[in-house]
Amino acid sequence: MKKRLFTPGPTPVPENVALAMAQPIIHHRNPEFIEIFARVNENLKYLFQTKQDVYTLTSSGTGAMEAAVANLFSYGDKVIFVNGGKFGERWGEICRAYGVEAIEVKIEWGRAVTPEEIKEQLKKYPDVKAVLVTHSETSTGVFTDVKELSRIVHENSDAVIVVDGITSVGAHELYMDEWGLDVVITGSQKGLMIPPGLSFIALSEKAWGMVERSNLPKYYFSLKKAKKALQNGDTPWTPAIALIVALDVALKMIKEEGLENIWRRHEKLSKAVREGCKAIGLKLFGEPPSYAVTAVYFPDGIDKKEFQRTLKYKYGVTVAGGQEHLKDKIFRISHLGYYDEIDIVGVISAIEMALLESGFDEFNPGDGVRAVQNVFAEYEKSKLTQNDDEKFLSCCH
Amino acid sequence: MKKRLFTPGPTPVPENVALAMAQPIIHHRNPEFIEIFARVNENLKYLFQTKQDVYTLTSSGTGAMEAAVANLFSYGDKVIFVNGGKFGERWGEICRAYGVEAIEVKIEWGRAVTPEEIKEQLKKYPDVKAVLVTHSETSTGVFTDVKELSRIVHENSDAVIVVDGITSVGAHELYMDEWGLDVVITGSQKGLMIPPGLSFIALSEKAWGMVERSNLPKYYFSLKKAKKALQNGDTPWTPAIALIVALDVALKMIKEEGLENIWRRHEKLSKAVREGCKAIGLKLFGEPPSYAVTAVYFPDGIDKKEFQRTLKYKYGVTVAGGQEHLKDKIFRISHLGYYDEIDIVGVISAIEMALLESGFDEFNPGDGVRAVQNVFAEYEKSKLTQNDDEKFLSCCH
Repeated sequence: MKKRLFTPGPTPVPENVALAMAQPIIHHRNPEFIEIFARVNENLKYLFQTKQDVYTLTSSGTGAMEAAVANLFSYGDKVIFVNGGKFGERWGEICRAYGVEAIEVKIEWGRAVTPEEIKEQLKKYPDVKAVLVTHSETSTGVFTDVKELSRIVHENSDAVIVVDGITSVGAHELYMDEWGLDVVITGSQKGLMIPPGLSFIALSEKAWGMVERSNLPKYYFSLKKAKKALQNGDTPWTPAIALIVALDVALKMIKEEGLENIWRRHEKLSKAVREGCKAIGLKLFGEPPSYAVTAVYFPDGIDKKEFQRTLKYKYGVTVAGGQEHLKDKIFRISHLGYYDEIDIVGVISAIEMALLESGFDEFNPGDGVRAVQNVFAEYEKSKLTQNDDEKFLSCCH
Repeated sequence: MKKRLFTPGPTPVPENVALAMAQPIIHHRNPEFIEIFARVNENLKYLFQTKQDVYTLTSSGTGAMEAAVANLFSYGDKVIFVNGGKFGERWGEICRAYGVEAIEVKIEWGRAVTPEEIKEQLKKYPDVKAVLVTHSETSTGVFTDVKELSRIVHENSDAVIVVDGITSVGAHELYMDEWGLDVVITGSQKGLMIPPGLSFIALSEKAWGMVERSNLPKYYFSLKKAKKALQNGDTPWTPAIALIVALDVALKMIKEEGLENIWRRHEKLSKAVREGCKAIGLKLFGEPPSYAVTAVYFPDGIDKKEFQRTLKYKYGVTVAGGQEHLKDKIFRISHLGYYDEIDIVGVISAIEMALLESGFDEFNPGDGVRAVQNVFAEYEKSKLTQNDDEKFLSCCH
């Protein structure tokens, strides 16, 4: 059966990226690999929109989160973290595991923290060293405006802002340097379209200053060691070579399409998924929505297990279920990474058919798909208008 | 140019293993992956010769070393570690990074620690919690008899023995349970024949008891979290899925060949490399030799750079240089993992030709290769004798 993965990590791996991994393995000190790694490092800066080096760690995204905590902070440091979902919660867990005092801003799952809420906490705790947030909360499909949060943090404190961009990098607009984000992390099996096993972290000058003072124990995730190794174009430990070779191919694809185009594609596809779901009569969960993943309530009265089984075993479509208390309430459709218009038509069509076969029939077959295509048509129209404007400008200047 | 990798990690990846990685990515909570992971976990127990679970971490081997330290010990604990090379040294570095008092048994690079030396240290420091050793020291090509060390440690102390088996597992005889090894770790890009990015760790009951009491900070490498996840056939964080799919294929190959046969193959191939080198007039470094890697002195008077360039760019052969103070003194030929007789003939032949072309001609072309083939002939003969014995036994019982 054809496999169609609509999960927020792993995401589908392009065929040429997958085949790159199957090439004969090369040694990481070979000139051939050093050349690949140098190119990867340049392209990662483009991806993060930063002049800082982006460090590649061999770990899942959680490893990069731990690297941020263990390298920036010291025993007893106080930080604020936003818990609006499973991954926001993780910031707190990691800090506490390391003896960092983590002040929780608890947000009802399904909404985003507001700049005012952060401002309020910064007034209450003026001595915090950092504010840790999640750009796209994978567990709820909620987007947080980290550009605005960064402004608030820097205007109201000396704290750094640490951003989990694991499912936002490559989906949402993100300008690390311009927005003043001090730490940005991401993972490989997300917008980067390669299998899991690598994570990435970049730090501002200010964050590097904190690394110098940090006294928490670390070795494998030591960013000082990573920095020293990178000065020789190297990593401190043997990296996941095959994944870096794949990453090189994926980053070339990203550069070719262009970040702005990729962000716009994710905006469009995510809007199409939302409109498609609404047209079928499904209620969306979470606001404002992430461009990476759409969370949808199961409709009342359907056999949820049967619905998911039909999706998976009849149409080859894997979506993600809900996590924690949302386990049987929502399912999540990912559109992060290697997706196009026809993929979205496919997943909405599969959802329509699986719903009809599971006893939910409050819509006409094709309603969802029509809404999806309407969104694409709108974007096509706006692109034409945009092109006309460009033409106008270019003939008048 | 054909690539011929003779480095002690990464090691060559079998073609069917490489192609397994290029398959469409599957989700780690999919039944298909859960089945693969369950099989992998069973086969890893066979590899380690243990009834304990073997935990798969997404990291390089150093990550598993850190996992051992961070999970077993507490602040101020005292341990003994053997520094007979770069990787033994690493045990001490990790312990110290975590505030563990690490007593160094410094061994001249190129020889192995003796049981008496360990016994002496245990008498001197009766309160140590662990003895950390390296089974096959990759930087020097030296083998350490951990079976005997384990006996000594258990007879003379309450300490656990922690074994870095990164380049020994799959090359040297190792019976974790039978020998009383409390912790064994290994990496993926070694005897396991897959690309780097995974590491493995197994713990005895006694070591698990220490995990319960450990107060060092950890999160990503928390073995308690790994244990809890494995009870559901899962990992706490998204694993390097493509590498685990490759591992499944590699472990099937290992099971098919049989561990005893694999150990014997490594013994034979390593002996052939040593005899081949000696026949050319090269001096071996280190004693007793590891079956994973052979360290050889550069002969006097050759242009070392030219020699290595010729090997690499004319014959496609990558060997490893020396590390630290051995940088320009030795080179290392690995024969760990996916190698057979003809590979060894090839590497010795390439070394012969590169030496002749670099101004070293104190041998006749083919001397090394003849010695290699003589070793194979000896093994073939002993196998025949063995088979006759077996036949004799089977007809008489």
